[in-house]
Parts: sequence; structure tokens; C-alpha cells
Amino acid sequence: MRYSPLLTDLYELTMLAGYLEEGMTEQRAVFDLFFRTNPFEGGYAIFAGLESALVYLENLRFSPEELVYLGTLGLFKPHFTEFMRDFRFRGCVTAPPEGTVVFAGEPLLTVEGSLAEAQFVETALLTIINYQTLVATKGARMVQAAAGGTVVEFGLRRAHGPDGGLSCSRAACVGGVRGSSNVLAGMEYGIPMRGTQAHSWIMAFHDELTSFRAYAAAFPGSCILLVDTWDTLKSGVPHAITVARELREQGHRLQGIRIDSGDLVYLSREARRMLDEAGFPEVKIVGSNDLDEYLMDSMKNEGSRIDIYGVGTRLVTCAGPGGGALGGVYKLVELEGRPLLKRSEDPAKSTIPGRKRLLRVMTQEGRFLQDLICLEGEEPQPGDTVYDPANSLRQVTLPVGVRLGDLRGVVMRDGVRCGRIETLDEMADRSQREVALLPEGCRRFVNPHRYKVSATARLRELRERLLAEHEAD
Amino acid sequence: MRYSPLLTDLYELTMLAGYLEEGMTEQRAVFDLFFRTNPFEGGYAIFAGLESALVYLENLRFSPEELVYLGTLGLFKPHFTEFMRDFRFRGCVTAPPEGTVVFAGEPLLTVEGSLAEAQFVETALLTIINYQTLVATKGARMVQAAAGGTVVEFGLRRAHGPDGGLSCSRAACVGGVRGSSNVLAGMEYGIPMRGTQAHSWIMAFHDELTSFRAYAAAFPGSCILLVDTWDTLKSGVPHAITVARELREQGHRLQGIRIDSGDLVYLSREARRMLDEAGFPEVKIVGSNDLDEYLMDSMKNEGSRIDIYGVGTRLVTCAGPGGGALGGVYKLVELEGRPLLKRSEDPAKSTIPGRKRLLRVMTQEGRFLQDLICLEGEEPQPGDTVYDPANSLRQVTLPVGVRLGDLRGVVMRDGVRCGRIETLDEMADRSQREVALLPEGCRRFVNPHRYKVSATARLRELRERLLAEHEAD
Repeated sequence: MRYSPLLTDLYELTMLAGYLEEGMTEQRAVFDLFFRTNPFEGGYAIFAGLESALVYLENLRFSPEELVYLGTLGLFKPHFTEFMRDFRFRGCVTAPPEGTVVFAGEPLLTVEGSLAEAQFVETALLTIINYQTLVATKGARMVQAAAGGTVVEFGLRRAHGPDGGLSCSRAACVGGVRGSSNVLAGMEYGIPMRGTQAHSWIMAFHDELTSFRAYAAAFPGSCILLVDTWDTLKSGVPHAITVARELREQGHRLQGIRIDSGDLVYLSREARRMLDEAGFPEVKIVGSNDLDEYLMDSMKNEGSRIDIYGVGTRLVTCAGPGGGALGGVYKLVELEGRPLLKRSEDPAKSTIPGRKRLLRVMTQEGRFLQDLICLEGEEPQPGDTVYDPANSLRQVTLPVGVRLGDLRGVVMRDGVRCGRIETLDEMADRSQREVALLPEGCRRFVNPHRYKVSATARLRELRERLLAEHEAD
Repeated sequence: MRYSPLLTDLYELTMLAGYLEEGMTEQRAVFDLFFRTNPFEGGYAIFAGLESALVYLENLRFSPEELVYLGTLGLFKPHFTEFMRDFRFRGCVTAPPEGTVVFAGEPLLTVEGSLAEAQFVETALLTIINYQTLVATKGARMVQAAAGGTVVEFGLRRAHGPDGGLSCSRAACVGGVRGSSNVLAGMEYGIPMRGTQAHSWIMAFHDELTSFRAYAAAFPGSCILLVDTWDTLKSGVPHAITVARELREQGHRLQGIRIDSGDLVYLSREARRMLDEAGFPEVKIVGSNDLDEYLMDSMKNEGSRIDIYGVGTRLVTCAGPGGGALGGVYKLVELEGRPLLKRSEDPAKSTIPGRKRLLRVMTQEGRFLQDLICLEGEEPQPGDTVYDPANSLRQVTLPVGVRLGDLRGVVMRDGVRCGRIETLDEMADRSQREVALLPEGCRRFVNPHRYKVSATARLRELRERLLAEHEAD
């Protein structure tokens, strides 16, 4: 999939033209991409979108038509268009692998390169990483709520545009969702395909049983029947059982039934009982209808018997606290070797300057204790005192016996990708494994335990020095 | 822009394969696309996305690679793949023009064709129309809140994937937003481009004034300066005034300043006073930072002096009541000439069967009184008694002297588009004109007056007869 280089805010182009006028395009710049609050007021996020971002960076070049369009804006001089003709991304990118559990305030992507190239890619990187990370996080929360049940994604019709649906299907997989109804996502990303019928299928036949039989005849090996068109328990489930018997006689197996309306807890329990009594304990129950992690959690507690959750609207729109957006930002943290800080009205919200490493502090068994940000070249050790970046009065000592590991690696050097492309299954396995290694309170959906992200003493000193210099200005 | 025909839910394909097995693909079907609740708990919606939908329908065909992919799913028989090779959309579409004010319960798109083609396009039509209608509505609400100020769209970085941003830029224009930062939207749709600088531009220079001068030198004719990097009133605005003077000496004009943080009401009032006192009453103030219609409305009431509102996150994600999704659905209303009804547990929510017309009832001066749904071929008249489709106990008489006009026309016949392609400006003018013609209470953001959408006696009778037949089953 080609991302047009015009998929950007106009100001990236005007700034670039300005840097060209000032002879600043080749200054060496470092930008950090991070977010300030965990999505959904939750305890964690799942990093996603890196592969899409690298595809964008690798293929960044302007077509002749795009250059002509820029000319029509009446904003740019001819030598800028010349400059853009040969414009490529030849910088370096540091990032964690997709599926990594990450937290507010951590540098996720770090982009180093010329000021021109590193600035220009801001909008596209934010567009890609913000949404995919948000969806992967929402997906992981839903998988967590399913508590062993399967979650599949049916969100395309409520997506924010066609590609919103495609990005959602991909990123949901990174979060552990195992299947989608979106056929293009199946082709593009190899995601397993899932589907049943619409109510219109049932209505197109003269009666429900005939419609079920027709579907079973067409798909005897993969038949899931939508049982709620007329009356789930009086008509839908009994007709499904009839078809299950007929399929069994032909050597096939009814895969499942789907309930898309009504009280899913009550209906799934009754349907389960009816299927079991009829001798079909293996027939799965698919439930759908505006599900999210909160509802799935409470349904589980009420004894719902749903095996497969079809999630659509609330996954694809990332509904919930936070309003459907991850507020990722992209900030200049170093220029020509000089660390930079963007002060905020609240100093606690000022950016963290300089080139940094992001480390995870773990028990010997691998359980996650906290994360740690330090300057490049630093080697923090167990026993070090570390600080809350938002308030250096809050300090802790890294316990003796912990392990420290880098969360990020170089994934692109001089515009060329490093390392192997992972599969979505590997990413999904990582996110599921890492969520399980979190302190338990961090997995709570409401008012979770706040996972610590600390800064080293050296990083704290650099930040305080730069803040003081600004005050003195 | 090509929409892949695989941009669909798997079940559209499996149902199609099933209809092929049953010999039903050529049955004549009619589907209605509608939504059940106005977005944002508001009083109206702005219809958008039609042009994109028609492009999709016109170009619907499977590429050889896509057919090969379908083969790999192990679901379909070879004669289905053969059938899909020649599959086209050759049906008819009835719809209002984009920018039309529409309401919950009204048939928006009606698609008539073979059961195969009319069913298959469901997912893509919903994906396109749902989001664009949602954004156009959000945009119109923001334009309404701006009360004469200009609204421009900066949402790309918070979009749900790259195309989410592109669809947003387009649909926001249909709602009356007059410009975007998204350069690809500029190229694709001819939308006017808007932009300033990022904080990183300011930080890349040794001081703010130098950074402002550099930008003004590069763009003397279109310079808007971001004044909140260090201190809006102590540093940003005074430096902007300095540059405004320098530009004036060179025969240019500073276009504006932009405030992106802090108390926008206070800062815009102070900045306005400083600019006026310095002799720059023509310099505009751009305000941005998580703005939506509610905030803009209350800022206006507090005397904010913002001229241009830059809206991003809350427009592109369609934040607010309703959770970022328009719940548009696509229902079979007629098959082989037989009107169909999908009963809901709540009979008031059952679909409205049959082929229908959608009329607007207006005063002689053109003010909107109510909308009316009738059966095709009916000619309702002033003086007729009409009914609330949700409760036929509620009835009103159409006043003598009103005008009735069709809201919809045939926009595609036998797969070929009819009529002229409108510009986004024409659509924007329509939405602005129609919002102004609504009963005043319908424009309220919270608890608006409910605009009446009625059904004729004949339509009511048909619906009640079909409901009774279902009860008897």
C-alpha cells in the first residue's frame, strides 16, 4: 500500500521550505514520538503501527503529479520543488517491536536525521501510530475481558473511512484479536476471515428454517447461523438445532450460532442449555451488539455463555474515555547535538530532552516492575535512585537483583530497514504475554494501578538545567 | 481513488455464493440505508459521502489477484469465482444531494438491483456514508458554533488511519468547514490549504523573534505566526507585532497569529487588544486546542476574539454523544415486488417496508416544517393526516398552503451515473442554507427540538399489516 507523501499537514511543507531558505535543512535533529495519557484511562497501551510507518518512510518520494500540485498552491519557489524531487527519508528510527506494552511519557519512536526529513514525517507517523496503537490497546482490553474466549473484529461499516477499517483490522490483531470480517484486511495482512449472514439473508427466504438450510447447503463445513431475526429461543435456536442434526447426518458439524440483539447473557445461557440438551455441546455461541470490554466483563460475571465475541463499532471507533483519539505528539528533543526542551505552562508537562534509552526493570522471573528512561550512553544499575519525571520529589531505588532490558532497538538506519519483518501472530503473542507480566492492578479497566515510568538522575539534572535556563531568559 | 471490492465483510461474499447456489441472485431487491438516531444527540444530520459511494459503485470489479485471494480462502466453489469475474454493479440508486439536512429514520440511499449486487455493496456503502455523514454533521455544528467565524480542519494526525483523514477533510467541507491542513485532500478534492508552524519550528531557532522573521521571510504573503511556544502575551504577541511592522514596511501584511494552548478566551482578548493598539486590527487570531462546538459556543459567550477556529481531534474522531459512530444500517425492504419488514423486539423500531419517496414539507417562504415518507406513486397533499412512524397515535394534519418537495432523486441508473458532479462548495452552500431554514430549536446542541418525520396513512397501513402477519406466524 502506497502512502502519498502529500498525506501530511501543509505546515510540514512550509516549514521545510523555510528551513531550505535558512540553509538549515541539513542540521541534525532528533524527534521523539510519545503520548501523555494512557488510552481509555487504562493502565497500559499496546504499541502498534510500526510496520506501516516503516513502509511509509521507505517509500517516501514525490511523484511528478504531486510536485505539480504543490506548484499550484502558489506558496513555494521553484528551487523548493527541485529540492522535493529528490527528497527521501534517509534517517534512523528507534522503536520497540509491535505488541510491546508501553506507557504514557515513554519515547516510542525516536527519529534521527536531517531537520528536513525528520520534521517532514511528523504528520504521517502520528496518523499511523496514534490510531493503530489505540486500536491495539482497545483490542487487548477486549481480549482480556473475553477471559479465554475468542474475539473477532466486525467493525468495517463503522470505520472512519475505508482505510480506517483496514488499519483497525491489522492493529486489533496486534492486540490479540484473532480474526476479522474485513476481506481486504485478509488479503493485505493474512488475517483469518470470519463471517455469518445478515438479517437480510434470513428475510430473503420464505421462512427461517429454509434460509438456514440454504446456508448450510452452501457452506456445510463453516456454517454459523444468525438466530435472532424473528425470535431467538422460540424459532432461531430450534431451527439451528434442526440444521445441526441434518449436517451431522451428512458428516458435517454446525460451527456455531450467532446472537446479535437482546439480552446476550440470558439468551446465551438458554441457547447453551438447548444446544447441550440436543446433543450439540460443541456448537459455539457467537455474541455481538455494541460490545466493549466493560460490557464483556460484566456479562462474564453474570454467567454469559458466549464463546466468540464479535466486536465492531466500539473497537473500530475506540469508544470510551479519551474520545477515540490517542494524543500522540512528536517533539524536537535535540538539534545539532544540543538537547532541547519544550516548556509547558505546567513544568511537569515539559518534554524530556535529549537522546534517550527506554529500559524495562523486571524481576528475575521476568515480571515487569517499572520502566526507566535514561540518556544515551548511560548504564543504570540496580540500587540506583530514580525519579518521577512529573515530580522529582517522588523517588525510588531500583531493587537489588532486578534485570534491566532495552525496550527499543534501531529498526531503520540511513533510510534502510534493519531486521526481520514479524508476523501479526508474533506481535499478538507478544502483547498477550506482556499484558500477563504486568502488575495485576495495571490490568484493571477502571482506576488501574499506575505503572511507574522513572527517569535517571542524569536525565533529571539535564531537564532541570534546561528548565532553569528558560526561566532565566 | 480505487476502492477494492474486497473492502467488505466476508458475509457479503458468502451470502452471494449462497444466493448463487439457490438461483436467487437475479431476484429484484430494494435496500434502504438509514440511521436510527441523529448523531451527537443533535437535531439534524448533514448527508455526505454520495460522490465517494458512486465512484465505488461505478468501478466495482474484482481484479485477477483479488479473485485468486478469494480462491485461497477455501470457502468458494470455482463457479462462484467465475461469477465474480464478471460481477458489476448495474443497479439504481436514489439519494439526496450531499449537504442536504436529513434526519433519523429517513431512507437516505435506496439501492435497487439484483439481490446479488444490491446486497453485496452494503458494507462499503455503510463505511463511506456513515463516516462522511457523521463528519459533515460535526463540521456543520462547529461552523454553527463559530457564528460567522471561519472553521478550518487540522485533524489528520488524530485520524483513524490515513484515509480516515482524507474522508474527514472532504466531508467536513460538505458541512461548511472552509479549509484543511491535509495536503492530499487538497490535491484530491481541491480543498483550500491552511497551515502555520509547529512548535519545533520556533525551537529550531535560537530565539522566537528570529524564528518569526525567518518564517515571514519565506512566506511574506501568507504568514501566520504560532505565538504560544514560550509565553503568548509577554513574548509571542509582541514578537508577532514586531514582524507585522517589518512586513508592512516591505509592503506585506501579517495574516494572523495562532494560539494553541492556555485560556483561549483570555489570551485572544488580550492579543486582540495588543494587535489593535499596535495598529493591526486586520491581523486575524487563529485558535486551536481540542475545540468542539460546545467549547466554541461557550467561548463566544465569554467574549473570545478568535476569528479562525482550527479544529482537529474532536472533528476527525467525531467526539461527543454517540461515540464516534453513525449507526447507519442497510435493510432489505422489498424482494421480487414483495414489501418486507424486519421486526424488532420494540415494534416501533421495525423497519419501514417498500419503495418510498422522501418529501420535505415547507412554508411558502421555504422554511422547513417537517419531512414526510410515503410509498412510491403516492402524491400526498396539504390537509392530509400523517403519522409518527414510531407511534401512530401521534398524528398531525399537513397545514393548508405548505409546499412539498422531493428530497431525493435518481443518481445512478443501471450502474451509470445520472446528473452533474457538484463541487464541494455547492454542497457546503447547501448545508449552510438548509441548516438556516430549520426550525430554530433544531439547531440547539443539547436537547434540541425534535424535527418531525411522518409517514402517510398508506405507508402506516402497509407496515401495520406486515407486522400483524408476523404476529400471526
